[in-house]
Amino acid sequence: MNDDIGQHIDEMIRQEDSGTRPSGQEAFDDLEPDQIALLLESLPLDAREHAWFQVPVESRADVLVAMRAEPRDSLLRLFDSEALDQLTSSLDAESLIELADSLPDEVVDIALARMDQRQRHYYEQSASYEDTQVGRYVDHELLILPHNSRVRDATRLLRRTVPEHTGHLWLINRTGHLAGAVPVTRLFSAREAQPLSELIDDEIEALNAGLDLKEATDRFELAAVPALPVVTDEGILLGRMTQSLALETLHEHYEAQLMATAGLDEEEDLFAPVMRSSRRRATWLGINLLTAFLASWAIGLFEGTLEQVVALAVLMPVVASMGGIAGSQTLTLIIRGLALGQITTSNVMPLLKKELSVGGLNGVLWAIVIGIVASIWFNSAAIGLVIGLAIVINIAAAALSGVLIPVLLERLKIDPALSGSVILTTVTDVVGFVAFLGLGTLVLL
Amino acid sequence: MNDDIGQHIDEMIRQEDSGTRPSGQEAFDDLEPDQIALLLESLPLDAREHAWFQVPVESRADVLVAMRAEPRDSLLRLFDSEALDQLTSSLDAESLIELADSLPDEVVDIALARMDQRQRHYYEQSASYEDTQVGRYVDHELLILPHNSRVRDATRLLRRTVPEHTGHLWLINRTGHLAGAVPVTRLFSAREAQPLSELIDDEIEALNAGLDLKEATDRFELAAVPALPVVTDEGILLGRMTQSLALETLHEHYEAQLMATAGLDEEEDLFAPVMRSSRRRATWLGINLLTAFLASWAIGLFEGTLEQVVALAVLMPVVASMGGIAGSQTLTLIIRGLALGQITTSNVMPLLKKELSVGGLNGVLWAIVIGIVASIWFNSAAIGLVIGLAIVINIAAAALSGVLIPVLLERLKIDPALSGSVILTTVTDVVGFVAFLGLGTLVLL
Repeated sequence: MNDDIGQHIDEMIRQEDSGTRPSGQEAFDDLEPDQIALLLESLPLDAREHAWFQVPVESRADVLVAMRAEPRDSLLRLFDSEALDQLTSSLDAESLIELADSLPDEVVDIALARMDQRQRHYYEQSASYEDTQVGRYVDHELLILPHNSRVRDATRLLRRTVPEHTGHLWLINRTGHLAGAVPVTRLFSAREAQPLSELIDDEIEALNAGLDLKEATDRFELAAVPALPVVTDEGILLGRMTQSLALETLHEHYEAQLMATAGLDEEEDLFAPVMRSSRRRATWLGINLLTAFLASWAIGLFEGTLEQVVALAVLMPVVASMGGIAGSQTLTLIIRGLALGQITTSNVMPLLKKELSVGGLNGVLWAIVIGIVASIWFNSAAIGLVIGLAIVINIAAAALSGVLIPVLLERLKIDPALSGSVILTTVTDVVGFVAFLGLGTLVLL
Repeated sequence: MNDDIGQHIDEMIRQEDSGTRPSGQEAFDDLEPDQIALLLESLPLDAREHAWFQVPVESRADVLVAMRAEPRDSLLRLFDSEALDQLTSSLDAESLIELADSLPDEVVDIALARMDQRQRHYYEQSASYEDTQVGRYVDHELLILPHNSRVRDATRLLRRTVPEHTGHLWLINRTGHLAGAVPVTRLFSAREAQPLSELIDDEIEALNAGLDLKEATDRFELAAVPALPVVTDEGILLGRMTQSLALETLHEHYEAQLMATAGLDEEEDLFAPVMRSSRRRATWLGINLLTAFLASWAIGLFEGTLEQVVALAVLMPVVASMGGIAGSQTLTLIIRGLALGQITTSNVMPLLKKELSVGGLNGVLWAIVIGIVASIWFNSAAIGLVIGLAIVINIAAAALSGVLIPVLLERLKIDPALSGSVILTTVTDVVGFVAFLGLGTLVLL
């Protein structure tokens, strides 16, 4: 897959550079909408614009749905009213809900007005859930039967067009409540007149539409079924969530986590306009600057000491960096544990004890190594002693913070993956500098 | 799911603390093997050991298979020869291949000797693939028919026990080559005597058994089917890969990436013994120490300057840290792009240009802010000028390294997620210190 895309990217950029613009729309015949979306996201803005007009008109809505919000917006800005008009005429409820935030309100209204009543109803239902909730992404293409149907009713229904991922038929009672799921494969060994209610798969547990999308993917890892039914609080069947959506959700979740560690948004455009990109990144740099100034302030407390023993200034990064690294190891382990639901009030203490022991051992080990190197470098056993002690203190503080910071953030409902690392580094910088320069003041002056 | 596990964790630790040990094995009746595995991983070693003996004997093999390698090994060490004997008697080829690395060779041999010929054949087939390849994890429970079968043959087969995830029947020719996939749902609208070859779903593309597991999950995101067939280079059908495995693979892949950023292994035990854990983390700290000493060495070049202008020592962390943060933003964006296959030879230059522009803008912005703060703090416009210039240089160097380091690592077949960040920080530290202290020497002395 990736190689295909790579070749297309090179081809598009070559066209752009040479100024040749094929007028046809065959360029992407071999690609799925998801792949075209990825390809467009990989192109600089000019080339992206020209590539867009080579996307077959009938795939455009699907391609836009598959794109990340920001690069998608870069394309929607190119739409004149005629193009918007064409787009809205081809959207169903599920596509519109994905694009709604990127479209002007009046365009959404036009699209809604053009839908049939059922699609409009689906749209309003989905829109009543947050974009982190299962209910927003309900798939309405499923085969539903009254709960008192028989096998022959099911086989008759299955003779018509069958939606993708159809592994189950869904039974509802007269009030629309989910009454059970019947695996299609069970129909073969059943009698024509047998009630479907006798073929229900008891292991299918419905997802509440208010459930967090990420938690829903965990259910799929356990359940191993192509789709799960989605119901309201009252148990009314809204539709289903497919395992494919679970896969996509998991992908986006982790990508967002990796991006968040650098203060970036998952929807960020690889080729975002320079001004926009700069403005957004400036915030993260600004937050970091505050913590860096805090570290500087800690150092500033010991200006007098530094003036007399310049070796301390030279060795400062070693103390801060060993604390930062040791702390981020503990932090990462704890963040994973929290994400998996492995960490509870009762095992935080044993964990803290273990991490402090590991930190203690590594602290002593590296304190000896660094102490010896520093003693030789600056020809002073006292400097070796000072940095050794500072390393032990800072690595212990790092282990303590590595456990406690994410646990506290989680309790305050702040995502530790987002801010844990910034807070931790601030702690290890300040503790490291104060310990090192403080001890230096006591021992060396 | 997570809440359930949390309660069990607390209960198990309470039992351990109070010394009460229920002898029964009902404790985990409401949990799936995957959940029991997670629960065991969440317990300190003593409590884990006692909880293990409450796991129903018939679930133990599945629980071990579901566990991460390291906590699993902590349990296997408790097995006496009788327990190992019991375990091996209940393993099929797919479970044995998962456990083989954790078991002594002679135990694997015994387990193999006990299997029937078909399972042994499956084992040897799987073992001939690497643990990153699809072939190793082939699922052999699937419904296979000769390519010239008719609909009535299929319905007859489906009347027997049907494996989970059965969305397709697989057709093979006389030599065992995959001849097509027939969706079960298409059987309903077909005639009894119709050849299955007329019902083949053309969109199912087989996975080569040598394919990388992560790349296979990408195929699932595109294909949206419950299972894909796995074939040898010659096209012989080995079995299938399920979408559930894709979900699990994706989960593990990203977890490994997040752990790797802190030099940790995905298989790491939350409660690893202190000695082992310390030894492993020491390596990462050692690597980091070398880079920290490199930074110290760079500072050491300017000892004379630092002695005369101690303000430079105070402000050093600001320069290094702004470069590190700006660089890691670029790095993270590029690593994502590389993982998605978005970055090719033809768009590296436009990307570099964009990142340098973003870096330039932010460099100038923050250089002004930091310059003003530093001028006021140390009452010296010259210091403000020096740090401002150093910030511009370091953020530009960060943007350059943030693009080039991961692209080069990828070309050298080194995972940029693993080592990109260490190398980048070393560059921004050294460039930052040399620029800042070098300019300080020129301007301030």
